[in-house]
Amino acid sequence: MSKINVGIADTTFARVDMGAMAIDEIENVTSRMRLIRYTVPGMKDLPVACKILFDQHNCEMCIALGMPGAAEIDKICAHEASQGIIMCQLMTGKHIIECFVHEDEAETPEELIKVCDNRAREHAQNVIKLLFDKEWLEKNAGKGLRQGYPDAGPIKS
Amino acid sequence: MSKINVGIADTTFARVDMGAMAIDEIENVTSRMRLIRYTVPGMKDLPVACKILFDQHNCEMCIALGMPGAAEIDKICAHEASQGIIMCQLMTGKHIIECFVHEDEAETPEELIKVCDNRAREHAQNVIKLLFDKEWLEKNAGKGLRQGYPDAGPIKS
Amino acid sequence: MSKINVGIADTTFARVDMGAMAIDEIENVTSRMRLIRYTVPGMKDLPVACKILFDQHNCEMCIALGMPGAAEIDKICAHEASQGIIMCQLMTGKHIIECFVHEDEAETPEELIKVCDNRAREHAQNVIKLLFDKEWLEKNAGKGLRQGYPDAGPIKS
Amino acid sequence: MSKINVGIADTTFARVDMGAMAIDEIENVTSRMRLIRYTVPGMKDLPVACKILFDQHNCEMCIALGMPGAAEIDKICAHEASQGIIMCQLMTGKHIIECFVHEDEAETPEELIKVCDNRAREHAQNVIKLLFDKEWLEKNAGKGLRQGYPDAGPIKS
Amino acid sequence: MSKINVGIADTTFARVDMGAMAIDEIENVTSRMRLIRYTVPGMKDLPVACKILFDQHNCEMCIALGMPGAAEIDKICAHEASQGIIMCQLMTGKHIIECFVHEDEAETPEELIKVCDNRAREHAQNVIKLLFDKEWLEKNAGKGLRQGYPDAGPIKS
Repeated sequence: MSKINVGIADTTFARVDMGAMAIDEIENVTSRMRLIRYTVPGMKDLPVACKILFDQHNCEMCIALGMPGAAEIDKICAHEASQGIIMCQLMTGKHIIECFVHEDEAETPEELIKVCDNRAREHAQNVIKLLFDKEWLEKNAGKGLRQGYPDAGPIKS
Repeated sequence: MSKINVGIADTTFARVDMGAMAIDEIENVTSRMRLIRYTVPGMKDLPVACKILFDQHNCEMCIALGMPGAAEIDKICAHEASQGIIMCQLMTGKHIIECFVHEDEAETPEELIKVCDNRAREHAQNVIKLLFDKEWLEKNAGKGLRQGYPDAGPIKS
Repeated sequence: MSKINVGIADTTFARVDMGAMAIDEIENVTSRMRLIRYTVPGMKDLPVACKILFDQHNCEMCIALGMPGAAEIDKICAHEASQGIIMCQLMTGKHIIECFVHEDEAETPEELIKVCDNRAREHAQNVIKLLFDKEWLEKNAGKGLRQGYPDAGPIKS
Repeated sequence: MSKINVGIADTTFARVDMGAMAIDEIENVTSRMRLIRYTVPGMKDLPVACKILFDQHNCEMCIALGMPGAAEIDKICAHEASQGIIMCQLMTGKHIIECFVHEDEAETPEELIKVCDNRAREHAQNVIKLLFDKEWLEKNAGKGLRQGYPDAGPIKS
Repeated sequence: MSKINVGIADTTFARVDMGAMAIDEIENVTSRMRLIRYTVPGMKDLPVACKILFDQHNCEMCIALGMPGAAEIDKICAHEASQGIIMCQLMTGKHIIECFVHEDEAETPEELIKVCDNRAREHAQNVIKLLFDKEWLEKNAGKGLRQGYPDAGPIKS
């Protein structure tokens, strides 16, 4: 059975190697994907990196990993990158799972690395579900799932 | 008479299963639609989910249900998702009824669930009207209709 | 002489029937247009409504009427709708005259209705000018014209 | 030698006739352009006005002149117009020189008119340079040029 | 071996000649590129400048250099330019390395020039890596690289 190409787009700007974490998670779980990694300088280079992964590397899906800094300008960059990632998906009709960890999300380096690891792995799981197990997602609709932190869970009256 | 395909795009991030509410409403009212549900991880995955529902599942219309959290970053995600949903509609020439409930819209869990249920059902009704009864919408132009809360009603001098 | 199709896109969310006001203004002035009204639930449905009016109803121009509420989220919705309306124009190469009245623009219901009536009619006049009398617009370039309120007029040194 | 069509898009909303200023500047300097003026109601009509000038009037370049008011909503309109102007350029591969003067840029009417006149003329000069003298622009790269106010000049250590 | 065309898009608005710095860096390192410089008036002209460099000058990659001023309006211009630069990349499937230095990033003129020089050269290096040494980027994924300031480095637990 031929493998499905999946793109891993990440950055040298990020301060944690989330791309490696996502790759590790996928390779531990399945051998049905061929992972194609594409590292770019910063978050705003991710949309076209995914476009290239779709168009030139025949990817069926991508995961885009980035780590915005704590400054206001970094928030704006992340916003621009997200808009581009959504547009790229609309142009190609293919999913890009965005996995961003903001540098100010955690209080300590240990906690931040933990958030990165959890989020990268849980979003890698989302890629796997979208490709091979859409029913799992449907069964979990409205369940308050989170990536990087414990699930919020469904609201109970 | 052949059925009309309608897409139900929702998320595992949401803490209330609004997709089920919308489906229930439609199935109670009409058997003229074939509902195709597509659950994705988060709000920002909804635009391409609808694109896929239009392009690969032959849908005539979609409803996109999401539940932004209370944090500032969630507001930005909702904004990005909305922009993508509008762009998707322009690319396909088909309607996507956006049904978002912000987690901080209500004071209590009971009230929040109630808002979700009302809004999902009332927007499901909007899908039905847009497909089968555009005249009803025209008759209600400028009437201050709301989804999830009581109608504001027309302004009276 | 064949009539020119003009789309009137409006919403059930609005609390004043501005669509009827725009239609009344146009029908009082000219019989050269065939008006096609398309009422949608909310502002964010207006861009695709205009796309459909252009593509499926052969419209040469549209007017899009909406009434954002006073809350912050309504301002964001109006912004998203405006971006979509501009994109729709670029995709079709045709004008959409946007006629939005914010619910908090006026102090009293009477005044708000008055602003709606004036703006809808004056923007309906803009549609007429763009279709039949571009010279009038050119003669009024830089004249500080307003819709809904008295003209600001040209700045005088 | 055949003339180059250049579009002058401006508005009736503006309170100073900047279109006339730009036209005057160009006609004083060169007879190699055929100027095609297109006046629209407001700033948000400028992107499609330029699209029409490119597509239907065979323009090689446009200048888009507008005058946002001092209110917050006017700033948002200007932002939306600018996004549309950039998108129009990307769709056509042609330049639109945006010449906006914010009504609150100056303290007195005299000063505001002066800023408008300077900016319209200096941006008209930019159109001329982009069409006929790209080398001049290259020689002035990083020189801190401004339009409407004195040049900031290069930063000196 | 034929050279690869690379576009250098910069502005007359910038107060430091970052285009020259980027060109100097590239020419010192490699003779495999043909550099095509295109100077435009301001940041918002950069997206279409790159589009023209791709479409008419056969560039494989671009670097876009700009220098937003310190005022709020300049931040918005930079945001609009960035959105356009991302869209241009998605339309062409080619990278544009954005190199913006905000005028208020540094305290003294000397420091600002230094930041410009470092950032222009380090982003020029990113162009070289993307074209000829993608493996270097992959090896540096998650390493907290910065341009213009010392690298932040990877987060250590």
